[in-house]
Amino acid sequence: MDKILRIDMGAKGGPKVTVEGLGAYAGLGGRAMTSTVIAQEVPPLCHPLGAENKLVIAPGLLSGTSAAMSGRISVGCKSPLTGGIKEANSGGQGAQVLARLGYAAVILEGKPESDDLYRVLITKDGVKVEKDNALKMLPNYDLVDAMKKKFGDKITCISIGPAGEMKLAAASVAITDIEVRPSRHAGRGGVGAVMGAKGVKVIVMDDTGCKNREPKDAEKFRAANKVFVNGLSTHSVTGQALPAYGTNVLTNIINEAGGYPTYNFRDGQFAGAAKISGETFADLETKRGGSATHPCHRGCVIRCSGTFVDKDGHFVSKQPEYETVWAHGGNCGIDDPDAIARIDFLDDTFGLDTIEMGATIGVAMQAGLAKFGDAQAAIRLIEEVGKGTPLGRILGSGAAVTGKVFGVEKVPVVKNQALPAYDPRAIQGIGVTYATSPMGADHTAGYAIATNILKSGGYVDPLKTEGQVELSRNLQIATAAIDSTGMCLFIAFAVLDQPETFQALIDLLNAFYGGNLTADDVTALGKKVLKLERDFNARAGFTREQDRLPRFFTTEKVGPHNIAFQVTDAELDQVFNW
Amino acid sequence: MDKILRIDMGAKGGPKVTVEGLGAYAGLGGRAMTSTVIAQEVPPLCHPLGAENKLVIAPGLLSGTSAAMSGRISVGCKSPLTGGIKEANSGGQGAQVLARLGYAAVILEGKPESDDLYRVLITKDGVKVEKDNALKMLPNYDLVDAMKKKFGDKITCISIGPAGEMKLAAASVAITDIEVRPSRHAGRGGVGAVMGAKGVKVIVMDDTGCKNREPKDAEKFRAANKVFVNGLSTHSVTGQALPAYGTNVLTNIINEAGGYPTYNFRDGQFAGAAKISGETFADLETKRGGSATHPCHRGCVIRCSGTFVDKDGHFVSKQPEYETVWAHGGNCGIDDPDAIARIDFLDDTFGLDTIEMGATIGVAMQAGLAKFGDAQAAIRLIEEVGKGTPLGRILGSGAAVTGKVFGVEKVPVVKNQALPAYDPRAIQGIGVTYATSPMGADHTAGYAIATNILKSGGYVDPLKTEGQVELSRNLQIATAAIDSTGMCLFIAFAVLDQPETFQALIDLLNAFYGGNLTADDVTALGKKVLKLERDFNARAGFTREQDRLPRFFTTEKVGPHNIAFQVTDAELDQVFNW
Repeated sequence: MDKILRIDMGAKGGPKVTVEGLGAYAGLGGRAMTSTVIAQEVPPLCHPLGAENKLVIAPGLLSGTSAAMSGRISVGCKSPLTGGIKEANSGGQGAQVLARLGYAAVILEGKPESDDLYRVLITKDGVKVEKDNALKMLPNYDLVDAMKKKFGDKITCISIGPAGEMKLAAASVAITDIEVRPSRHAGRGGVGAVMGAKGVKVIVMDDTGCKNREPKDAEKFRAANKVFVNGLSTHSVTGQALPAYGTNVLTNIINEAGGYPTYNFRDGQFAGAAKISGETFADLETKRGGSATHPCHRGCVIRCSGTFVDKDGHFVSKQPEYETVWAHGGNCGIDDPDAIARIDFLDDTFGLDTIEMGATIGVAMQAGLAKFGDAQAAIRLIEEVGKGTPLGRILGSGAAVTGKVFGVEKVPVVKNQALPAYDPRAIQGIGVTYATSPMGADHTAGYAIATNILKSGGYVDPLKTEGQVELSRNLQIATAAIDSTGMCLFIAFAVLDQPETFQALIDLLNAFYGGNLTADDVTALGKKVLKLERDFNARAGFTREQDRLPRFFTTEKVGPHNIAFQVTDAELDQVFNW
Repeated sequence: MDKILRIDMGAKGGPKVTVEGLGAYAGLGGRAMTSTVIAQEVPPLCHPLGAENKLVIAPGLLSGTSAAMSGRISVGCKSPLTGGIKEANSGGQGAQVLARLGYAAVILEGKPESDDLYRVLITKDGVKVEKDNALKMLPNYDLVDAMKKKFGDKITCISIGPAGEMKLAAASVAITDIEVRPSRHAGRGGVGAVMGAKGVKVIVMDDTGCKNREPKDAEKFRAANKVFVNGLSTHSVTGQALPAYGTNVLTNIINEAGGYPTYNFRDGQFAGAAKISGETFADLETKRGGSATHPCHRGCVIRCSGTFVDKDGHFVSKQPEYETVWAHGGNCGIDDPDAIARIDFLDDTFGLDTIEMGATIGVAMQAGLAKFGDAQAAIRLIEEVGKGTPLGRILGSGAAVTGKVFGVEKVPVVKNQALPAYDPRAIQGIGVTYATSPMGADHTAGYAIATNILKSGGYVDPLKTEGQVELSRNLQIATAAIDSTGMCLFIAFAVLDQPETFQALIDLLNAFYGGNLTADDVTALGKKVLKLERDFNARAGFTREQDRLPRFFTTEKVGPHNIAFQVTDAELDQVFNW
């Protein structure tokens, strides 16, 4: 992982490939890599779809090694959705394969002069960039099938669907999973639109002939990995809840906590929650011959994924994640697992962020385009996006644009990015993260649910303001660091609760790189990344006034706790005052 | 003009009317009134379509008097287009009539609980607010016809068309002219959407039984007015060019200067300019039996308006203004006067800002929705807005949203508001105003064309950066003051060039109010208004990074001068450093 691959899509005469050393970017991985490159190389006031923006794809520091859970890949750019810096990350095989191929980053830059579409092939023998207009407007699943026919079954794809080609702000970058399905997505912030603006449809990778990256101290590395895996397998969240029910184990938990936003953030509980819970999905999957526990990449020991099949046992989609089930389910008043799985597939194949799209359909329902609870109408609306109709383009541009176009006041976005599946009024800590994360509303950026609800890393009362700023701050710092390692964020539960698992993570890094990192260094890394990101946003014109929830969260109370968001502006302004 | 009329559209049980004294707002008019009320009463981070926003309608300090040119009315709010403070002003009869009725401001506030539509009637006998859902989605021309049938021919209407009811960000507030046609518009920034969000379709005014407002010193006032009118009639712009050809006299002038943006700001000159020039329009109007010189309100001595009729002499629209002819003409490669007049009518009757819509059609053409130069396609696109189709709603949301939805990089907006009819590369002074005005891209906010091109108020070379910041600063200050008097901005030509006409303006104010204003006081008023507006925007999250032109103006040169926008960011940041 000692090379950076640059592809200048705007070079005279066609794309120009350059492979260079790490230079000033040595020692960076994942989010630290993408955010550093963007902060240093992209003018903050450039147009997100223009020549000056770049798409940076980077595996984490431990990706491509034998360390468990090290398969997260970061995708960064100036976001077409928020206008600020963006890192969206994803599971799937991408990180492991790209790292084994030796690349610490792929940087797509420049702007193509024509509207030709390109395909990139990366193998141990080098990099090829070829024009392939036959791929135009192919949905991700069809695209990957075509690539498998052409390049065989051992490939891993990083691709965009029609949404990315249309440069829609809700467009994702898809990463194929362990079964070579485009089911994993760097979803947030419109990273797929930037890939579309670069004219790159797919990056096909084949790591045949490549080996795992070798640690400096192999024995210490193996030992640390053993402690690490043991920690994960003994923690109730990563060892039991996630493997059994996937992320959707949260539906019942968050609904019971009264923090499950329904009907476009009107209520905090959903009558149909049990019908779409993780338990129900797992049951259905098992009964029908799907799979309720399944890894998304090599080296995963949590196995929170799954496979959803229809009544006849035919593949419908991967097991929809909690955020997806919420966004397209409870948030829209829909309690039909088959419809939700169908929408999950449509989002994946069109290349759309499921959170943004669910929030957008909620806003569209608020506008009267469909009735809350009408699953077939929701499917039809998503199909509009795939067709690229004017209505589809509105929806594919996300919740904020949809709200503007249809004159809706109640639009749950921060920095134009839709809020995920936790009401910030019933779970005040996550509200602090939504408001202040440089990414826009993002649950993973500082997952206060862990401590507010799951009592991981201690306990902070979700209905009170005390301690929320500190909680969000610490989580945002830790997350920025974890997102740089390539580790799946779900390790955080064990890392927060088990000092030995946290130490094992540090030992893994030290054994691999031969360093002497301490816990303080990890904190310093997280702070550094956040500072870079905040600075980029400031230069892009963001102020503390953008670090706010939409006003309705502070003026409209939500049941069952009958509470508004109560963290003050002054408190929010202290999050990055460390 | 010693009363403020507040209508709380969100009051329990229906709209609540309150008439109150001026209180802290005494001595304010026009833009000074609207911006002060918004700055003091509207939370900068509120939703523009929500209960907390207000729509303030205010005649100027001299409106309703016998002073010439005093018929401008200001409409202010937090803008749904820019997210900042907004004052859009208009001619027509509104200012004179509202002032004669005694109101220094009408403030629409709160948010209706239902989607009922209301009609407001203001006469000397008081104010009535009545539900009238029969008016729903009536275009402005049909609406005014209906109001004339109901209330007679002596009314003046302030209204919204379907665009305002749909809460589209390009929606205008229409003001009827001297023939009771809804041809004058407070166009910019989506003020019509805020009126729509308040559920008010039309304010019908009848000043029967009211008199002109009386000056404290009638003789001095008459004398000052005489000098003032004499100044206007002897200046070449206000005495000759504008009366003969209207504002569209500028087409040939700006085209010859190479500052006429065509094909969505691709070129600086338009081959078809002569076909749509003011001279051509005036010829056509005269030949066909329309009118080429005509006042838009009582007391106008410039008479820059006109009436455009078709080959058979039937009314098509008022004489389209220069900005409209440019936006829907050259900017879209269209050189057909009949098509442009038709679109002007459609914009007026749907209640749309012609500048925003022309720029939006240009962006749509850039996106490939129609070919540049296809007038019939442009008409069809505007008709989509009237129908409220998804495509129409996109377009009616303005150029920035249209660019986002269709993935267009080249979108000529500042603070999301479309640039008017002067290329900031060929006329650098207007670029400074576009970039820095708190209103977003706005030519009237500091009309540097006067000094860069028309050599009014001296001369600053349009192709050089020297002196542009100072020019824009002084013009922005003067304009903020003039916009508070109710005076038509066109008086500025004479005021800039003739010391005695400037003195006459001050004498008019002093004779009317019995004060001792000096030129310095006028400057101080302008500065005060700008400061209020900038402060509101800062509290809404605006920084100097929003005081920038889109980057393509600094990176792409425009012909025939082959020049980019060259005023530096550091220079732009000095505009308000007085």
